[in-house]
Amino acid sequence: MSLSPARFITLEGVDGSGKSTQARLLKDALEALGHDVLLTREPGGSPGAEEIRALVLEGKTDRWSAETEILLFTAARRDHLERTILPALAAGQIVICDRFVDSTRVYQGISRGDLREVVDKLHALMIGREADLTLLFDMDPALGLSRAKARQTVEERFEDFGLQMQVKMRAGFLALAEAAPERFAVIDAGRDIAAIGADALTAVKARL
Amino acid sequence: MSLSPARFITLEGVDGSGKSTQARLLKDALEALGHDVLLTREPGGSPGAEEIRALVLEGKTDRWSAETEILLFTAARRDHLERTILPALAAGQIVICDRFVDSTRVYQGISRGDLREVVDKLHALMIGREADLTLLFDMDPALGLSRAKARQTVEERFEDFGLQMQVKMRAGFLALAEAAPERFAVIDAGRDIAAIGADALTAVKARL
Repeated sequence: MSLSPARFITLEGVDGSGKSTQARLLKDALEALGHDVLLTREPGGSPGAEEIRALVLEGKTDRWSAETEILLFTAARRDHLERTILPALAAGQIVICDRFVDSTRVYQGISRGDLREVVDKLHALMIGREADLTLLFDMDPALGLSRAKARQTVEERFEDFGLQMQVKMRAGFLALAEAAPERFAVIDAGRDIAAIGADALTAVKARL
Repeated sequence: MSLSPARFITLEGVDGSGKSTQARLLKDALEALGHDVLLTREPGGSPGAEEIRALVLEGKTDRWSAETEILLFTAARRDHLERTILPALAAGQIVICDRFVDSTRVYQGISRGDLREVVDKLHALMIGREADLTLLFDMDPALGLSRAKARQTVEERFEDFGLQMQVKMRAGFLALAEAAPERFAVIDAGRDIAAIGADALTAVKARL
């Protein structure tokens, strides 16, 4: 795979890994370098996708099967791609996206049975776009879990997995990174914010 | 294809073709013969699918791209299948479903570009179930359109196509029937309700 300039950058990792903080820091750092940056996130990121997000995240955790959830996330992703990401890239912006298909590959792909192949086929059929560069914020699952629980965000459904599941999710992300090393940069997220941010910026600048 | 007993029966046709009336008549007739019948419809048919239906049908017609709409309908169909259709079939009921994947094949598959292959691949990947018998209520598009407009239902988004589009939709349904004659029964729906209902019941009884 050619190392084309990284204009579409996704941030991935387990909850509590500091992704969202790093997304904002990275946006500020790139803007300070003169780039025009759009910061967005999934699920959501466009008006339609935000409505689908609400439909998926509200209610009981067993409200949707894993397969239906994958379809809803893919519908939201298609809308987000069409209405937010692709127009921004076409306008010359760098797009930083907090979670993208790798989160679906891990959370919906391995948390309730093995649906990784379904997620991949559905992505190939309906989305067909990977990030140019994916920053994986990797950390000790126990630390991520305690941070996520302390935060008590509206995303708590995703965080209500327990340590065993966090360990599995981390392994899932690392397996994706190993399978696509040209796309991933794995960053040790168990350090202070500034050190993590410096590594993230270095990884991005190497690909701009 | 083997002609297995038709327990899962779908009703298709352009808007104004009298499907919904015939669905109720067919349910009554089958119950009078001693069958346990569930009447359901798409989009919708389960609590989750009804919420997805509302999300798709509300708002402007260009709110979603054809691809996003296909994903949302497929998400709704997956939920409907899992929570309503398959449990009813497992309990020994005959399921009559007013619209199923053939409507997506026609409305989303050919109304905005040619997405038939996408609809088929997505159906194979995420649903994987066809009806045992599909009754296609076929009629002159001009008549269907005038009936649909006179009715002014909440489904008016689907009906706001104009005559040219209705002609195209009819041709789309007939092409599906021609491609799968063992699954389809094409019924002339340009007659009085009783005559149509008699033909529908005959087609179903031949397969029970």
